[in-house]
Amino acid sequence: PTGVSAPEVAYANVHIVNWRGGPMTSLFCLTEQCLIHVACVCAGHNASRDVVTLVKSVLFHRRNPLHFHFITDTVANRILSSLFQSWMVPSVQVSFYDADELKSEVSWIPNKHYSGIYGLMKLTLTKALPSDLSKVIVLDTDITFATDIAELWGIFRKFTDKQVIGLVENQSDWYLGNLWKNHKPWPALGRGFNTGVILLYLERLRRIGWEQMWRLTAERELMSMLSTSLADQDIFNAFIKQNPVLVHQLPCFWNVQLSDHTRSEQCYTEVSDLKVIHWNSPKKLRVKNKHVEFFRNLYLTFLEYDGNLLRRELFGCPTQASPESVKLQKALEELDEDDQCYDFRRERLTVHRVHLYFLQYDYTPTEDNTDITLVAQLSMDRLQMLEAICKHWEGPISLALYMSDAEAQQFLRYAQASEVLKNRKNVGYHIVYKEGQFYPVNLVRNVALKNANTPYVFLTDVDFLPMYGLYDYLRKSVVQMDMAHTKKALVVPAFETLRYRLSFPKSKAELLSMLDMGTLYTFRYHVWPKGHAPTNYAKWRTATTPYKVEWEPDFEPYVVVRRECPEYDQRFVGFGWNKVSHIMELDAQEYDLMVLPNAFMIHMPHAPSFDISKFRSSSSYRNCLNTLKDEFHQDLSRKYGSAALKYLTAQRNI
Amino acid sequence: PTGVSAPEVAYANVHIVNWRGGPMTSLFCLTEQCLIHVACVCAGHNASRDVVTLVKSVLFHRRNPLHFHFITDTVANRILSSLFQSWMVPSVQVSFYDADELKSEVSWIPNKHYSGIYGLMKLTLTKALPSDLSKVIVLDTDITFATDIAELWGIFRKFTDKQVIGLVENQSDWYLGNLWKNHKPWPALGRGFNTGVILLYLERLRRIGWEQMWRLTAERELMSMLSTSLADQDIFNAFIKQNPVLVHQLPCFWNVQLSDHTRSEQCYTEVSDLKVIHWNSPKKLRVKNKHVEFFRNLYLTFLEYDGNLLRRELFGCPTQASPESVKLQKALEELDEDDQCYDFRRERLTVHRVHLYFLQYDYTPTEDNTDITLVAQLSMDRLQMLEAICKHWEGPISLALYMSDAEAQQFLRYAQASEVLKNRKNVGYHIVYKEGQFYPVNLVRNVALKNANTPYVFLTDVDFLPMYGLYDYLRKSVVQMDMAHTKKALVVPAFETLRYRLSFPKSKAELLSMLDMGTLYTFRYHVWPKGHAPTNYAKWRTATTPYKVEWEPDFEPYVVVRRECPEYDQRFVGFGWNKVSHIMELDAQEYDLMVLPNAFMIHMPHAPSFDISKFRSSSSYRNCLNTLKDEFHQDLSRKYGSAALKYLTAQRNI
Repeated sequence: PTGVSAPEVAYANVHIVNWRGGPMTSLFCLTEQCLIHVACVCAGHNASRDVVTLVKSVLFHRRNPLHFHFITDTVANRILSSLFQSWMVPSVQVSFYDADELKSEVSWIPNKHYSGIYGLMKLTLTKALPSDLSKVIVLDTDITFATDIAELWGIFRKFTDKQVIGLVENQSDWYLGNLWKNHKPWPALGRGFNTGVILLYLERLRRIGWEQMWRLTAERELMSMLSTSLADQDIFNAFIKQNPVLVHQLPCFWNVQLSDHTRSEQCYTEVSDLKVIHWNSPKKLRVKNKHVEFFRNLYLTFLEYDGNLLRRELFGCPTQASPESVKLQKALEELDEDDQCYDFRRERLTVHRVHLYFLQYDYTPTEDNTDITLVAQLSMDRLQMLEAICKHWEGPISLALYMSDAEAQQFLRYAQASEVLKNRKNVGYHIVYKEGQFYPVNLVRNVALKNANTPYVFLTDVDFLPMYGLYDYLRKSVVQMDMAHTKKALVVPAFETLRYRLSFPKSKAELLSMLDMGTLYTFRYHVWPKGHAPTNYAKWRTATTPYKVEWEPDFEPYVVVRRECPEYDQRFVGFGWNKVSHIMELDAQEYDLMVLPNAFMIHMPHAPSFDISKFRSSSSYRNCLNTLKDEFHQDLSRKYGSAALKYLTAQRNI
Repeated sequence: PTGVSAPEVAYANVHIVNWRGGPMTSLFCLTEQCLIHVACVCAGHNASRDVVTLVKSVLFHRRNPLHFHFITDTVANRILSSLFQSWMVPSVQVSFYDADELKSEVSWIPNKHYSGIYGLMKLTLTKALPSDLSKVIVLDTDITFATDIAELWGIFRKFTDKQVIGLVENQSDWYLGNLWKNHKPWPALGRGFNTGVILLYLERLRRIGWEQMWRLTAERELMSMLSTSLADQDIFNAFIKQNPVLVHQLPCFWNVQLSDHTRSEQCYTEVSDLKVIHWNSPKKLRVKNKHVEFFRNLYLTFLEYDGNLLRRELFGCPTQASPESVKLQKALEELDEDDQCYDFRRERLTVHRVHLYFLQYDYTPTEDNTDITLVAQLSMDRLQMLEAICKHWEGPISLALYMSDAEAQQFLRYAQASEVLKNRKNVGYHIVYKEGQFYPVNLVRNVALKNANTPYVFLTDVDFLPMYGLYDYLRKSVVQMDMAHTKKALVVPAFETLRYRLSFPKSKAELLSMLDMGTLYTFRYHVWPKGHAPTNYAKWRTATTPYKVEWEPDFEPYVVVRRECPEYDQRFVGFGWNKVSHIMELDAQEYDLMVLPNAFMIHMPHAPSFDISKFRSSSSYRNCLNTLKDEFHQDLSRKYGSAALKYLTAQRNI
């Protein structure tokens, strides 16, 4: 038909090809026109976790390139930017906008809704988003998609020339004002509209002067209403009541609102399709609804869905790959498949998805600049250590957890049910999502290390319990040893018990007597004494001041160092040489190894870890480990010059 | 339009409503016409496991009631019938047909294909399936659906009056006969057709005399071909070559064939949709294909998908619920939500999905009728015990594994990589799928118990290692103690070590000396001596013949009994009283408890198990456990009369 502008025609073509058939089928993506924009206001740790499920549900069904626009506070920005960077989903762009800069636009509006000031921010999108962005779908974080978002995007084409905003009717009687005596809601057209899903025609909104219009509406109503009850939604509704021609009403299935007392049932039993679910209540999944099991299943599908599977390319879609993925692709192509260590090198190139600060986290830096973070990594089978560690270490903790999406949810339930963990806000939990056959232990360690927020770090393993009071003792030692101006690694001597029921020693004296009794041993005394021999336990027994020890091959003590220490070398995956190489590099950088006379930690026994990789041809594993060691030595020499040759010599003499 | 028969019109309505939008949306299911029939030939353990992924992918996208028809051997029948019975998916019917009865129909055809005789059975479907079944979709087990199967079903309506069979072109050059010198394939129309996905118009096939026709074709071609190379596919193709008007060619995306050298890429890059993937090679997921990662992701999505989530009802679909689900619904409604033990009672009603014989299993009963199966249950965190148990017990083992779908796949990879487990065929692995917050330990134990295939069972826990030679000793004891004609429970004394590096005692003498040294203890000596005190370890030290002991409260020994012993009481979920109640019931049934003088087993240490339920309000947990105990006692009295009152008295005296 003539009279339709070129881009619309192009889009219409896409439309026809797109919407038949099931999900996950390939896409005939014709032009730039098929890029879909989605905006989301997201603040804090919990919303950052929730929005991932929304994003998964959208990605699962999509066949178009997407551009996500996140209005975030600093917390959500840090979490989501690292998540998307490591997720590397093809044909997905992400932009962030600083919510704090927008606060002044809405902070004058008194608001009683549980979402707080962020609940009002959807009003500012014409200003926040790029001025050349013409249309955007705006979503709350508690939304789940059950269909391809392109179908919703296509509804923009059904807008009349006057319409600027697409919304679904509110599925409760709230705005009718008859819920209780003297219930006086904001003005709305009939039942009003819900703003969990919005089609926002930004270009037209800017043209009609939206920014001034909603402000005038809000100011006028606030004279009698005093505050908003449902945040932005009250203002949108008052605005629409005055300008009904501007709204395009969407079919109810585009925002099925599940609260305790909604009329949503009428929607989903009358229509054949159900496209978007909205957990539209602070009770979320615990909402009372006859069919809540059905909806919960749709939600749970994505909650525990392996996000790595969403990294699939879009067939036939001519979008450009990101520079990172081009680089990665090149590196992968350069690998030699016949190299016997191919699997190791392949793993080294794997980009693991990372979700930082998975739980609530609140840490204020100390003023004296001496604070120390306990740094460790773990997987599901060591979860039961967390409570004990928290009881032994009151300072900040940075933990990297190597888990699948489903395990991360299991961990979340565990943490939320644990009184000990719930009451600790200075523990940063960082999820590194599982992928591949190896355990990328040093990569996981580095995530925990890099996300410590103190000047010093205590690099430990999760199956050790620090002595009571270690945190205070280490903070004092940091000052005494002048760590701020010298390059030192403070060694915390390590011991072990082979017994499950241990009465933990309360002092060095008690520890020494348990050592004499045979209740405790120095760490790995029976199987690998080299690992800690240089600590010189004999000297430690009587030491009252810190003493310096020399590096020796295979030394792998637990140390306190400045956070800006070298990272762990990520070529070592699975088990073997992961800490040894790190201590070696500390030595190459001329850190002094100082043993602390009054510090100790004890390894708790556990069943051998269940590591699949061990069951794969262990002789080739050992061969590769040797190859990797050689390469590591060569890299050390290259970085630190001839001084580093001593490591190679030491290695050859073993 | 007139001239269209009534049922077709009804179906057409459904069709229109059905196929737009994404997956998992509700269904406007109008009439019986929307029931879709699917047939599958499935034999053996591996195919039974594979077919589940196919079924999940079909269920995930479906919005119609389904009827699955499985042609099975006895192994697949046992596995799939119990799986579907426990899966309880609404609007899914399942029928089984005995493949062995059909063997004679095709056994005369020499066949070189890796699928064996079962590869030919699709030829017999007009005979095997009910004579009033008009149409069926026939699928190989290595198929994954990426769309709603109703869309494929709808293609029957496009058949001309003459067409009886719908097929996709074969996506390789095999039938062109030019792959190598003297390559002589069976005759085919052009490139031929692939029989991994078939629309079979049974009614018309019967009418044209299909059964005679394919036989004549096969007999004639076999005169020169000697055998089939690609099983049924050769015969279907020779038949079609002779009767081209009978075939309806389906678009290529209904069967995208992924082998090393297929032309499938041409299909999926040319079309916009991709609806069915066929892992059409013995190499399956290891097939070489540029886009294999993409296809693998589609497959892995369903492989690890939580099958419980597929239990959702179909909205608006007036199909009848099964008697079991009606009964279950009623029981659930009768529960009192305000009962403080509601969660326990709710768990008791949970039907856990069960996949019996998840791995290859091959056991031949012994002729002397004295064989004993080791029975135990475990979850992921005890997997590392399996190899050790296999080394200590050479007899048959029945293990129930409490796992999620994803964990079951992890277990599969573990078992396939373990030399020890791979070489044992007499271990039955039964997956009980996780659901809910409790660990239904007795339900899991019962699955292991009921699927033991020997007259006697050794009821143990997975964290124990039997002494070397226990299997032989127990078999001899079974004869000596005349277990076949007396009611006895043979007690295997239990010990424990608190050390995780133990040199396992090779004899009773060595065990006793380790006991004296303090390297070993009697089981739970420190924390719960009651559990095993009646075993009378003092007497056992010097005993040389079996001796009888009396039941006492809280006694929970590990015993050998006949398989037809009482089941574990499933009201006890989580931890507490799960074995105690079982031993009590053995006593109520007047089993003699006989301690074996030369048998022992040792508990291996492990970290405390990670059990979420423990973290939920443990005081209410204890209260409920007491309530459940009382109810158990009452039930015992009801079943065994006044003699059982002693248990209640014993309980009250504690």
